[in-house]
Amino acid sequence: MAKQAITTREKDYSQWYLDIVKEADLSDYSPVRGCMVIKPTGYAIWEMIQQGLDKRIKDTGHVNAYFPLFIPVSFMTKEAQHVEGFAPEVAVVTHHRLESDGKGGLVPAAPLEEPLVVRPTSEAIIGDSFSRWVQSWRDLPLLINQWANVVRWELRTRPFLRTAEFLWQEGHTAHATHDEAEEETLKILHEVYSDFVENVMAIPVFKGLKTDKEKFAGALRTYAIEAMMQDGKALQAGTSHNLGQNFAKAFEIKFQGQNQNEIEYAWTTSWGVSTRLVGALIMAHSDDDGLVLPPRLAPTQAVIVPIYKTDDEKAATLAAAEQLKAAIGDKARVKIDARDNVTPGFKFNEWEVKGIPVRIEIGPRDVANQTVVLGRRDRPGKEGKRFVSWAELPETLPQLLEEIQAALYERAKAFRDSHVVDVANYTELAAAVETGFARAWWAGSREDEDKIQTELKATIRCIPLDQPGGEGVCVLTGQPATQQVLFARSY
Amino acid sequence: MAKQAITTREKDYSQWYLDIVKEADLSDYSPVRGCMVIKPTGYAIWEMIQQGLDKRIKDTGHVNAYFPLFIPVSFMTKEAQHVEGFAPEVAVVTHHRLESDGKGGLVPAAPLEEPLVVRPTSEAIIGDSFSRWVQSWRDLPLLINQWANVVRWELRTRPFLRTAEFLWQEGHTAHATHDEAEEETLKILHEVYSDFVENVMAIPVFKGLKTDKEKFAGALRTYAIEAMMQDGKALQAGTSHNLGQNFAKAFEIKFQGQNQNEIEYAWTTSWGVSTRLVGALIMAHSDDDGLVLPPRLAPTQAVIVPIYKTDDEKAATLAAAEQLKAAIGDKARVKIDARDNVTPGFKFNEWEVKGIPVRIEIGPRDVANQTVVLGRRDRPGKEGKRFVSWAELPETLPQLLEEIQAALYERAKAFRDSHVVDVANYTELAAAVETGFARAWWAGSREDEDKIQTELKATIRCIPLDQPGGEGVCVLTGQPATQQVLFARSY
Repeated sequence: MAKQAITTREKDYSQWYLDIVKEADLSDYSPVRGCMVIKPTGYAIWEMIQQGLDKRIKDTGHVNAYFPLFIPVSFMTKEAQHVEGFAPEVAVVTHHRLESDGKGGLVPAAPLEEPLVVRPTSEAIIGDSFSRWVQSWRDLPLLINQWANVVRWELRTRPFLRTAEFLWQEGHTAHATHDEAEEETLKILHEVYSDFVENVMAIPVFKGLKTDKEKFAGALRTYAIEAMMQDGKALQAGTSHNLGQNFAKAFEIKFQGQNQNEIEYAWTTSWGVSTRLVGALIMAHSDDDGLVLPPRLAPTQAVIVPIYKTDDEKAATLAAAEQLKAAIGDKARVKIDARDNVTPGFKFNEWEVKGIPVRIEIGPRDVANQTVVLGRRDRPGKEGKRFVSWAELPETLPQLLEEIQAALYERAKAFRDSHVVDVANYTELAAAVETGFARAWWAGSREDEDKIQTELKATIRCIPLDQPGGEGVCVLTGQPATQQVLFARSY
Repeated sequence: MAKQAITTREKDYSQWYLDIVKEADLSDYSPVRGCMVIKPTGYAIWEMIQQGLDKRIKDTGHVNAYFPLFIPVSFMTKEAQHVEGFAPEVAVVTHHRLESDGKGGLVPAAPLEEPLVVRPTSEAIIGDSFSRWVQSWRDLPLLINQWANVVRWELRTRPFLRTAEFLWQEGHTAHATHDEAEEETLKILHEVYSDFVENVMAIPVFKGLKTDKEKFAGALRTYAIEAMMQDGKALQAGTSHNLGQNFAKAFEIKFQGQNQNEIEYAWTTSWGVSTRLVGALIMAHSDDDGLVLPPRLAPTQAVIVPIYKTDDEKAATLAAAEQLKAAIGDKARVKIDARDNVTPGFKFNEWEVKGIPVRIEIGPRDVANQTVVLGRRDRPGKEGKRFVSWAELPETLPQLLEEIQAALYERAKAFRDSHVVDVANYTELAAAVETGFARAWWAGSREDEDKIQTELKATIRCIPLDQPGGEGVCVLTGQPATQQVLFARSY
């Protein structure tokens, strides 16, 4: 049913994405401009992302807290670059009541003394708290994370990838020295973000530094993980900012050092990933038949579909399904699709579109033989099918899920690696960003980056941490260059 | 240190509450009027509440989703009583940009075509989605929950109990019949809310129906759980609304019945609990020494405090602490307080103020004897102390935690039961609400309720589901009455 409703990637990649979102039932449009509804199937994926990240955030010593949704406008002005970056896209609350307009409608009433911004990010409001919480070197490091919604008024939106409101986590930390802040920034990049995205979401990423042009408004340095989508475009999947002392100075986050006489400004960091990751997930693995979920992230890893015609067969296959689910226990997240009002074919199709990693079929003959048929979502058709005995299933299924996890990562990595081209000149650069990433030596200026963005619609996604060393020739200026960068078009 | 900073309940109950919030480090004021910062210690409690509720919400067949923060003003007007209830207290977004005022400040720019309300609750925006998701009887029941922040502009706020922004879950469901909606409303009341609040938070509750005066704006019927605080006032800890067809008619939530010819309006419910529960928790159990956490809810259930003077003693007691923590494993949530810059006395005091259920002391003599000293937070001093051998600790500790859990519930229940007075006339009613709840036969009108509220500052908290049967005499009117109600002053 749904399958035919999905446009192929080849025909129209953007439409394919929207079709997957719709047919896999991940999100819905809303009457509020730029805001989406995250439907249960989509939200379950986000919950898995939350769980995996929350564990890593806590394991690295952070604690969760919650700060106000609203930020007084005057706070936004305190950090000059920050305000420049966010003022153009903030939702502003100006009234705190609605009153009748006498014509059956309502109008805003009770104007606020000072308008409030709906947080686009929380450096400003958290900086204010930190200025009270940090007094002495003993209060450092302060390692806080928040799960929250944020709003950035976007003109062109797309479900998960770019929405006016989105959900995210934002970490905010304060440290005694530059080096500790830098260490934190990189720890988050490696141990939280890239570890989760690569090992759970099965998406390979490049880790690197942003150029000054691309860094966060107010940051000293921004690190990011960049993933490649199936159209060769880049998606920034997470960012980690060393904010230096910029916000500490703007918000007076000061502490008495171990040398009791000195009052010093703290060094802060911030870092976040958002519901955008759901978009990355869709575009990294899915195919023309629907969503493909990596097993470690899949809320349901396998669905058992009983196949029967008679009542006796129904009883026997359902009993077998229950027995197998119990035998598997917590070794895998398994669901039985016992619906009686749709055919097995309909069910197969639905779980395929929704990306469930493994399908387990049990028909009357399987009951007789005490076997099941396993079908892999990542390898549709005969190739991915295998017969397994009931006795073996509790061991085989988790192994198969790990096999699929590895296969998806390898497939994504092979795709990515074959779409990264080392380019030596502008012509090669222009060609490479048509289909993927271009790796180039770079010694250009910010203006040079602007020029390339205008001409090729591509930007420097990052300066990878992993550098070959030595020296090369800048792809644009021909000058000697000591670093390589990755150019790409991006979401 | 902190202890002396807590005002006694007897002296000033309101100030005691604020002191506990501050000294147990649960929340902080914010520069945004009426909004609080939930500090890590307070947020960890909220996370425990979320986990416990989320499990029960899912176990009863609901799934999580997420709907927009903003609601178009025109949507608010669709249900007449709903808009009347919420219009006076909504934050309104009117612009989507800030621009320089030329004097270093920023002013709202880019007015919206239609102002947006920051959700005070989501019936209106979810009703719109439901109208698209519900088409046929096969789509029912639709059982959705959302974890979100909401904003109600309050003039008088108090941390956790009443804040302009608060965190909550809101369930929204749609059903084919009135009876199914009613069953859902009661299931949530019993199996989710009262089960959690009584069995995990150790707070006894009255379950009952709200009077028309007190019900949710737009509901057919509102059920609530009402808890008694230590000053005898009531706190509404959770509400579950049978919305009838009111919202279905306002938002066109219609479905084709099993009899294919008929299009019917759905029957909807909504239900929620919020960060207010943290306030209930504080006021139900805490004492003049600080917070008291029931073990099942405590993020940390026991803290091991090593006591030493020499380096050798330090090494021995810390090693013992690690060994015991490992032996306890996941039988209890245990933390070792290995801080070297504060005294054991300081630590004892800090964990007492923060309400950790059990303190485990290990000094050099305990190491020699292979014993520890357990101290109960709910019974300070010698009475709550006991010696336990290392070998027994992994079994004894979980038992002790359950003992404490039961003791806290019993203590709260005994307090409550001794503060509920059966009243036969107005004088007795007036006296009873000074110190607790008044149970009375009731046959009065809405105007009678208004009169009592004006005169006694007390309201009908609920018509308990648990009724004695038979007939009595109305406490106010002297008329024959068939039901008893509970009057109280409330938060």
